[in-house]
Amino acid sequence: MASVRIREAEEGDCGHILRLIRELAEYEKLSEQVQISEEALRADGFGGNPFYHCLVAEVLPAPGEPQGQGIGSKIIKKVAQVALDQGCSQFRLAVLDWNQRAMALYKALGAQDLTETEGWHAFRFEGEAMRKLAGK
Amino acid sequence: MASVRIREAEEGDCGHILRLIRELAEYEKLSEQVQISEEALRADGFGGNPFYHCLVAEVLPAPGEPQGQGIGSKIIKKVAQVALDQGCSQFRLAVLDWNQRAMALYKALGAQDLTETEGWHAFRFEGEAMRKLAGK
Repeated sequence: MASVRIREAEEGDCGHILRLIRELAEYEKLSEQVQISEEALRADGFGGNPFYHCLVAEVLPAPGEPQGQGIGSKIIKKVAQVALDQGCSQFRLAVLDWNQRAMALYKALGAQDLTETEGWHAFRFEGEAMRKLAGK
Repeated sequence: MASVRIREAEEGDCGHILRLIRELAEYEKLSEQVQISEEALRADGFGGNPFYHCLVAEVLPAPGEPQGQGIGSKIIKKVAQVALDQGCSQFRLAVLDWNQRAMALYKALGAQDLTETEGWHAFRFEGEAMRKLAGK
C-alpha cells in the first residue's frame, strides 16, 4: 500500500504548493484566477502572523497501485485533529457543484452541504470592485 | 443624518459583539448554532495570534431618521480598504439565499454570487463528525 505522511508545510514547500494550487485550478477550470506568486506564498504563510496554515502529504506510491488512493481522506482527518486541538467547533470546505466525486467524499466523511441544506451562497469582491469600494 | 464611525474592535467590545452575533443568528433563523461565549471571543480575537479581526460601527442616530441607514455599505467599504492595505486580492461574504436584501446590496456594491456564477457550495464538518474524523 502507498505510504502517506501528513505534516505541517515548511517555507521550502512553497514551490510545490504553488504547483499544486495551479493543478487544482486547472482541474476546476479556473486557472485565470491563480495570481499568487511563490514569494507571496512564503510571505503570507511563514511570517510572524501567518495568513494561512498548510498541511502537505508526502506520498511514496507502491508499485502497480493507483496513485492518490485515500490521501484526501487522510488530510481531512488531520485537519479535523488540528481544528479540535485549536479549539475550533467546525471547519468548512468549498467545492464546485460539478465535482461530484469530491462532494460524495465529503458527505461520506460526515460533512453537510450548507448551500443545499441552509441556502448559503458565497459572494466575492475583487479587483476593480474592491478598489472602487476602498476609494483607491 | 446619522453619524457613523467605523473602528477596530477592542477586547471590551466583546459583550456587544456577542449580542450582535446572536441578533444576526436570530434573523437568520440559526440561533441554535451560536455556541460561542464572550470569554472565547476575547481569547480568540485578542491574543498573540488572533483567529479573527473585527470592525465595529458606532452609530449616533439622528432624531426622526430610520436607524441603520448605510451602515452595511460603510463597513463593507472599510473591509475593502483593510483588505487592500493587507495585500488581499479579494474578500468573501456568506449570505442565505432568502436574504434578498443583503444579496441586492452586495451585488450593487460590485460583488459576484460565486454559488450562482461558478457553482461553489459550502461544506461544513462539525461536532460528532469532526470528533469521529479526528479519532477522538
